[in-house]
Amino acid sequence: MMQIVETSQEGFTDLFAQRSARNAVDLGGEPLVEQILEDVNRRGDTAVAYWTQKLDGEVIRPDDMEIVPDPGCIEKLDPDLRSALETAAARIRAFHERLMPTGWYETTEPGIKLGARITPLDRVGIYVPGGKAAYPSSILMCAIPASVAGVEEVVMVTPPRGRHLPLVIEAAAAMAGVHRIFRVGGAQAIAALAFGTERIPRVDKVVGPGNRFVAEAKRRVYGLVDIDSVAGPSEVCIIADGSVDPAWAAADALAQAEHDEAAAVLILVTSRDYGQQIIDAIPGLLQDNPRRDIAAASLETNGLVVVCDGLDQAVDLSNQYAPEHLELLVDDPEALLERLRHAGAIFIGASTPEAVGDYIAGPNHVLPTQGTARFYSPLGTGDFVKRTSLMSFNQDALARYAGSIARLADEEGLHAHRESVLIRSK
Amino acid sequence: MMQIVETSQEGFTDLFAQRSARNAVDLGGEPLVEQILEDVNRRGDTAVAYWTQKLDGEVIRPDDMEIVPDPGCIEKLDPDLRSALETAAARIRAFHERLMPTGWYETTEPGIKLGARITPLDRVGIYVPGGKAAYPSSILMCAIPASVAGVEEVVMVTPPRGRHLPLVIEAAAAMAGVHRIFRVGGAQAIAALAFGTERIPRVDKVVGPGNRFVAEAKRRVYGLVDIDSVAGPSEVCIIADGSVDPAWAAADALAQAEHDEAAAVLILVTSRDYGQQIIDAIPGLLQDNPRRDIAAASLETNGLVVVCDGLDQAVDLSNQYAPEHLELLVDDPEALLERLRHAGAIFIGASTPEAVGDYIAGPNHVLPTQGTARFYSPLGTGDFVKRTSLMSFNQDALARYAGSIARLADEEGLHAHRESVLIRSK
Repeated sequence: MMQIVETSQEGFTDLFAQRSARNAVDLGGEPLVEQILEDVNRRGDTAVAYWTQKLDGEVIRPDDMEIVPDPGCIEKLDPDLRSALETAAARIRAFHERLMPTGWYETTEPGIKLGARITPLDRVGIYVPGGKAAYPSSILMCAIPASVAGVEEVVMVTPPRGRHLPLVIEAAAAMAGVHRIFRVGGAQAIAALAFGTERIPRVDKVVGPGNRFVAEAKRRVYGLVDIDSVAGPSEVCIIADGSVDPAWAAADALAQAEHDEAAAVLILVTSRDYGQQIIDAIPGLLQDNPRRDIAAASLETNGLVVVCDGLDQAVDLSNQYAPEHLELLVDDPEALLERLRHAGAIFIGASTPEAVGDYIAGPNHVLPTQGTARFYSPLGTGDFVKRTSLMSFNQDALARYAGSIARLADEEGLHAHRESVLIRSK
Repeated sequence: MMQIVETSQEGFTDLFAQRSARNAVDLGGEPLVEQILEDVNRRGDTAVAYWTQKLDGEVIRPDDMEIVPDPGCIEKLDPDLRSALETAAARIRAFHERLMPTGWYETTEPGIKLGARITPLDRVGIYVPGGKAAYPSSILMCAIPASVAGVEEVVMVTPPRGRHLPLVIEAAAAMAGVHRIFRVGGAQAIAALAFGTERIPRVDKVVGPGNRFVAEAKRRVYGLVDIDSVAGPSEVCIIADGSVDPAWAAADALAQAEHDEAAAVLILVTSRDYGQQIIDAIPGLLQDNPRRDIAAASLETNGLVVVCDGLDQAVDLSNQYAPEHLELLVDDPEALLERLRHAGAIFIGASTPEAVGDYIAGPNHVLPTQGTARFYSPLGTGDFVKRTSLMSFNQDALARYAGSIARLADEEGLHAHRESVLIRSK
């Protein structure tokens, strides 16, 4: 079912390069998205309702786009579910408070104060996909960091499915501090958040996963508002040295594969036997899984077990792949940390399956995919604040540096820059 | 020359809203840019040379695209210029070291360690515009933060102007820690950095200002590599309460206006007389400026003096405008800081003209323009690192939370997520 290869075999380098090069940004435009953006920019809510009917097949009127959540939604939850969600929310909040950047403004030398000031964004939009992918955990992961950052208004948009949302979605939004909810989705929702309409307020940033229309719309409005990274299929890399029950590695592979047929699983082992044991454990675990067809198709197409020549090589391959999730099912996992350079999140040791981080560990599960862990970070509190530089020179300090400023301004042909400094010493 | 208006006059709200709504992202594509990206992706250096000849009118061969800088370039500089650049470089370095984020990995409760790890990007690209806009100060501002962050390879691209660069550009690049320089520009340079070619290495992030082809190319490759914000015309907002010589405010207005006819100057005053004194001081200062036609045109078209009903209203208007540069030419500037919410950089007090920050103060002069200070930050060390989440649970900790994880996985229909936790307690 999962392909197994050895790094020493012919063609391995090409095969692995091909699996690693999974980030195919569509360089062309999407004409329909351009049309939707322009229409919403021009006609506002009327256009939002038009495209919702046309694409989502749901008739909405501008005045019933907003959902007023049931104020008692949290109390109505099944107690176990409520407790689990509250556990997750509290832990996510605590971790993201720890991530909150702090500002400063200090005298750095006589007459000079410099600083970096941190302030929250005023208003952000959170996109929550429709259907099965409307995960309550993702609402917590997107909205809680905004709330911790101090964002005044958190606006959630999600494709319509009748006039109400599932109770758990409403409850998760309430726990996470979402202020307003609109039942619109797709490129028209992104357009509404970026431009503002009569009823949907313009935001400063849009986060959250969506389909390719949503991704393209986000890319097109980038600059008018900020966006998070464009998410691709989920993926895990598991480094396993044989010290952990192979069934555990197999179970983790399946937890990734059940998401989506496009989900990818890369398992780096140090012996062929152990790699084969992991593969052999899969069918038994698949049996009872209602999503077994999806998981099997994912492993078949995007699963790969690589037999490495030792852990050093496994680390190198993991760095080349730059996985979204990286599990270290090895005897001394912390010893590997130093040399691991690119990963969205690292799950350290046999008792830390990825599912821990998906739900309750505290760090965000919105992570860079498709090798973008080379340059992107997990969603965090820092995504919902911005920094302002502060500087204050007194007259003496300005006089001390006036010569350097004037010389550089001269070099760049900026006469008035020089004069703005020299006029102050006349 | 500069228009002066009072906030109480009819039509002010609309006028100010129109001046503030200066961020017009082009929602459509740029077919030529798409063509260039696809061609460079397919044909590599051959395509880079082709488009360079076609668009820049310069014949280059793939094997002479790289410039090998003169190792003695710094020593050959005029001593005053060298000293000014070295002063700027040292101060920029010190400030950006202070901005460097730090990682952590700690026990947060028995059996659980969590963390955030900070690592530099491997390789970044810096775009330096051609012609007059090739400012040595901008090379320092873009490359030094990358160097402080620990980026292994900093690659600079700049449109060709013969086989050599101006000495000061080479020297600034050397001081700032640039590793390699290629004489290619435009969309073809962005494409080469994003895809990699035979000779130009693929980077993880592209920063630096450019024309609209460069901006559009950056937007299209976003996701394949990271990019900085898309820069628009430069702008300053000056809040002045009458306590500072009006000629100083006029000089600062001109320092902004001389950049570009599209540069914008907004002056917020609390009395009409003082506003008029600022305007009246401009012609005398313009006389000797070689760029007087540019500055005059900028002030005529994009300059505005607003007479406010007190400093509180000036602060509100500044927040609405969200300026790139904000000068506080007032008696007690620090008293205003708390209520100022959106600005790229704030220049505090009469002896801190914007030119201080353009060159030697230390904070970055690459700042969010066109109102994007609502959500973007100045370029900083944080732009050249990424964060990785770390988490480690031991067996007891996993057992403590297994119920919550299983309940949430059930709710989301993710059977294998639940099993990956439960299998570890069997």
